[in-house]
Amino acid sequence: MLPPLNPVYPIRLIVVGKTKQKSIISLESHYKQLIKTYIRLEIFEIQEGRGQAERQLLDEAERIRGAFSGHKRQVILDQGGAQRSSEEFAAWLGGIMDRGESLAFAIGSSHGFHPSLKAEAKESVSLSPMTFPHDLCRAMLLEQLFRACCILRGKPYHK
Amino acid sequence: MLPPLNPVYPIRLIVVGKTKQKSIISLESHYKQLIKTYIRLEIFEIQEGRGQAERQLLDEAERIRGAFSGHKRQVILDQGGAQRSSEEFAAWLGGIMDRGESLAFAIGSSHGFHPSLKAEAKESVSLSPMTFPHDLCRAMLLEQLFRACCILRGKPYHK
Repeated sequence: MLPPLNPVYPIRLIVVGKTKQKSIISLESHYKQLIKTYIRLEIFEIQEGRGQAERQLLDEAERIRGAFSGHKRQVILDQGGAQRSSEEFAAWLGGIMDRGESLAFAIGSSHGFHPSLKAEAKESVSLSPMTFPHDLCRAMLLEQLFRACCILRGKPYHK
Repeated sequence: MLPPLNPVYPIRLIVVGKTKQKSIISLESHYKQLIKTYIRLEIFEIQEGRGQAERQLLDEAERIRGAFSGHKRQVILDQGGAQRSSEEFAAWLGGIMDRGESLAFAIGSSHGFHPSLKAEAKESVSLSPMTFPHDLCRAMLLEQLFRACCILRGKPYHK
């Protein structure tokens, strides 16, 4: 077996609350298992904010900032973020790992992110111009991370 | 309960072979169930082609043409197709349903579509500039169809 792609830092995935839908939990597990061969993942689950949407997003933003802290690359998953093909995403990820930079992704709750967090985000990545449920986005991001590893390793992986 | 959005024709989803991954089958069922309230879906499963990729895709293209036959709007799901936001996709779908046009989507196999089918396709829709597994794309399309119905009906639906 080849050594892992990134032995320096685990990639942190900041998620808000637990996934509730069983089929998505099972899909997430599937991709987490596949990714293990290549990279270490660290799922950092923060508590959902309470109260009205604005208050909730403010609380979550505060917790996300805490979870981002210490990471060189702080990336939010946002529909309006940088659109990349899987090959471009893999090249971007490969560059970060090659330079040994620490990387954290944040996936918002069903209300997304507080505008202040969006405004201060240095990097944002989009999985699609379409809106998908945030828990499905978790599984989609995991799938793209696995696909990126396959691309970087020149390993065939189905479409 | 409000009447279905499109009482004229069911929307045909042409898929190649069965989904093998259990979590994706379960995710598909989940969205199929949700869509039922709004539109009739007709899953048209064609057999996977055999032999080498070229031969396989040629066979599948032939079967997809057959399944498209008689439908006014014949749409292939292709990464390089028209990129739309969920709102734009909903508006596009709503227009088709309002005009009572018959609609069929084709989702390729893991090798995609034969170039000849791609070349003759009148319409193509992209779910993302990224490559996702074709069976996950089925679930993603079902999710977008449901989301489109919610948007057209002004019904709130989570992100």
